[in-house]
Amino acid sequence: MNKDLLGLKGVSRAAIGAILDRAAHYKKVIVSGKKKLTDCAGKSVFLLFYENSTRTSSSFDHAAKILGANSINLSVKNSSVNKGETLIDTGITLAAMGADIMVIRHQASGTPKLLADNVTSSVINAGDGSNEHPTQALLDMLTMRERFGRLKDLKIAIIGDVKHSRVARSNIWGLKTMGAEVTLCAPETLKPAGIEAFGVRVEDKIEDAARGADVIMALRMQLERQDSGLIPSVAEYSAFYGINKRVISLANKNAIVMHPGPVNRGVEIASEVMTMPECFIAGQVTNGLAVRMALIKILGNKEDIGL
Amino acid sequence: MNKDLLGLKGVSRAAIGAILDRAAHYKKVIVSGKKKLTDCAGKSVFLLFYENSTRTSSSFDHAAKILGANSINLSVKNSSVNKGETLIDTGITLAAMGADIMVIRHQASGTPKLLADNVTSSVINAGDGSNEHPTQALLDMLTMRERFGRLKDLKIAIIGDVKHSRVARSNIWGLKTMGAEVTLCAPETLKPAGIEAFGVRVEDKIEDAARGADVIMALRMQLERQDSGLIPSVAEYSAFYGINKRVISLANKNAIVMHPGPVNRGVEIASEVMTMPECFIAGQVTNGLAVRMALIKILGNKEDIGL
Amino acid sequence: MNKDLLGLKGVSRAAIGAILDRAAHYKKVIVSGKKKLTDCAGKSVFLLFYENSTRTSSSFDHAAKILGANSINLSVKNSSVNKGETLIDTGITLAAMGADIMVIRHQASGTPKLLADNVTSSVINAGDGSNEHPTQALLDMLTMRERFGRLKDLKIAIIGDVKHSRVARSNIWGLKTMGAEVTLCAPETLKPAGIEAFGVRVEDKIEDAARGADVIMALRMQLERQDSGLIPSVAEYSAFYGINKRVISLANKNAIVMHPGPVNRGVEIASEVMTMPECFIAGQVTNGLAVRMALIKILGNKEDIGL
Repeated sequence: MNKDLLGLKGVSRAAIGAILDRAAHYKKVIVSGKKKLTDCAGKSVFLLFYENSTRTSSSFDHAAKILGANSINLSVKNSSVNKGETLIDTGITLAAMGADIMVIRHQASGTPKLLADNVTSSVINAGDGSNEHPTQALLDMLTMRERFGRLKDLKIAIIGDVKHSRVARSNIWGLKTMGAEVTLCAPETLKPAGIEAFGVRVEDKIEDAARGADVIMALRMQLERQDSGLIPSVAEYSAFYGINKRVISLANKNAIVMHPGPVNRGVEIASEVMTMPECFIAGQVTNGLAVRMALIKILGNKEDIGL
Repeated sequence: MNKDLLGLKGVSRAAIGAILDRAAHYKKVIVSGKKKLTDCAGKSVFLLFYENSTRTSSSFDHAAKILGANSINLSVKNSSVNKGETLIDTGITLAAMGADIMVIRHQASGTPKLLADNVTSSVINAGDGSNEHPTQALLDMLTMRERFGRLKDLKIAIIGDVKHSRVARSNIWGLKTMGAEVTLCAPETLKPAGIEAFGVRVEDKIEDAARGADVIMALRMQLERQDSGLIPSVAEYSAFYGINKRVISLANKNAIVMHPGPVNRGVEIASEVMTMPECFIAGQVTNGLAVRMALIKILGNKEDIGL
Repeated sequence: MNKDLLGLKGVSRAAIGAILDRAAHYKKVIVSGKKKLTDCAGKSVFLLFYENSTRTSSSFDHAAKILGANSINLSVKNSSVNKGETLIDTGITLAAMGADIMVIRHQASGTPKLLADNVTSSVINAGDGSNEHPTQALLDMLTMRERFGRLKDLKIAIIGDVKHSRVARSNIWGLKTMGAEVTLCAPETLKPAGIEAFGVRVEDKIEDAARGADVIMALRMQLERQDSGLIPSVAEYSAFYGINKRVISLANKNAIVMHPGPVNRGVEIASEVMTMPECFIAGQVTNGLAVRMALIKILGNKEDIGL
């Protein structure tokens, strides 16, 4: 068995199903409002975020606390990492400090694997460079499964900056494994080189991607990149790749709109969409908490789910 | 019933009394040293401080932990707020993440209300611009009530930068509701326009304000503002509006000195005063913890106290 | 009895022994993986780090949480300290806020004592200037005692920047009290003035210090100081004072290598040493957690161990 969750590439359908089932169980706890368990009492979760992310780190922190685990939030920007310590030595130190699980986010792809290879603690990838963000894809899949009762044969259109998106990559790997049909749609400059290697459909026009989709998933646009010449302007991006009522009208009857957050209103998604019943963004956040609880429980207790 | 505490303006005498009674109950727990309860086990409190305040955020954090709640401290300076997400979307996200209570401090007046209007979670205002800081006023009132056994007909002199002070405003609203008599005293440049609208006595000289007072409450001077020309110099401010032994000697026999902290020694309050028995500043801090426990308990459990 | 641990200078053999015994007890808890106790339920530990130290602050935070205490991490860089409040007033505030224990790290020697003299709470020095870092020396002694079964007559070579090292000072005081034999070894520019006052052996050459040693303890080199002219270059320092296989071969048969961390690989210690069985650095980290649990328990419950 694998002690870590570094990505969804290569993770089996059974393992993903087991995580989603456990997350569905914990979602009931969250919704009940009695957010205090002892499932992971005596376990310690260390949060190691080299990139700022209030949203994801708070979600893991909250998940650990609900489970009764000790949650230790390292303030990495101020850490000994800045004193020249290697990542491997930091990992060894945290393991020696009793970390059962390390949750890491890092701007460099592959960092979670480097860490995992050098410690006995479990490592959860909370996003590495443009590589993977597996807990985001798992919460996305939980959201779709709740809505449609299945993932198999679902039609998912992923719209936007695929090139830089770890969210897109994790969703592609996970959704393909689960038997869903993924379509990518991006401006030419935001398509990764060799996009065909993903083995999924690619469309240039949002209308073609949205038509017949069950899920329209917008990716976050890093606005600070608009200066780099990848898009002509935010307004033009929004006009051609923004999700609005017209785009949604092309999708299937029960289609939903998703976004990993935080949303740039008026860029990836029109403000009008945010309050539509088709908008499932808040539900994704709740499911993120449930998925992270599931993973902390499964890895913290070394359950063998075939990872 | 109101799910939030956004300010003391318009809050009834009965509701304030209920909060103070509950705080008096929790103060016994704090003083006993057994600071571990299960009163709010399973509830989650999210701290959302857009302005730095170690003092107030630690007090809320500690209050939540003593009550057995999950306390999640968002590091807002590094948060997705800085990625262009609107406050409303941040609020919806935190609600979806299971926040029963959001505690917000913000430099802009009215922000807590904007948040409260858009989430089902309870919102506690921990200070917004120059508008209100209701938990500070509640802890001040608890301190006075402990000392004098009542608030009705107490004479309170509030000295200093009334113009910018949310502490002054919350105290004025709360104390008037409880039947106390408030006198404001400030240099001309630190009086708000339309000060008479508060409906309280205003004095120019500290001697006139202090004479016959039961409580002398100094407001914090934002020293960074001395460059803006509002006061001629810190030394002159201190000479005319600083609390010292002479000023205290004009007050009533059992009079006490209060300050919301942190104190600029030698500016608002002479160093000699800090160790006098009349100085109740440390007691205010303890009462702050008790008041915040009371509010987390009342709002977290949706108790109807007529708010 | 003393309510604080400010340093090891003047602390008795019995008191050090009692702390190490308790730490050995807690180490079993850590190793067992069931890191959840109620030994300090209802106590509150406030972390007050004026210098950044993820490593030490996380260790105290984790220790407090395992013991079931409330752990409140003040973000001092953003605190009211920066609003002109004196350290004494900050201390009085935290005591009023229910702090049973304050853990302080400060760049100025003597700060923990100033704090301790002005509050009724217990104060633990987590490192002050170049004065003392007692929990580091205690964890070092625990590590040696585990390895050799005793501290008496052990031969400890401390190598490096003794001049600026609080770790060296605390170890010297503690180890001398326990009957160990300490040898210091440093470049001339990194020896403190009056080094003979420590009453321990001093060697210029690392070979002379290492020969016959049971423990080779490297001190951390503050690389930012290399510009100040105290060492000719990092490469030269490493060549003459770095720990490598050759140096270790001069020591006693069961000798171990220690370092307070974080390690500058290739400077104080050659990379090849980090994975040798003689390298006990990770073990030191675990013992740090155990020592801090012991101190929080002893001081939090006001146990009289003859401090």
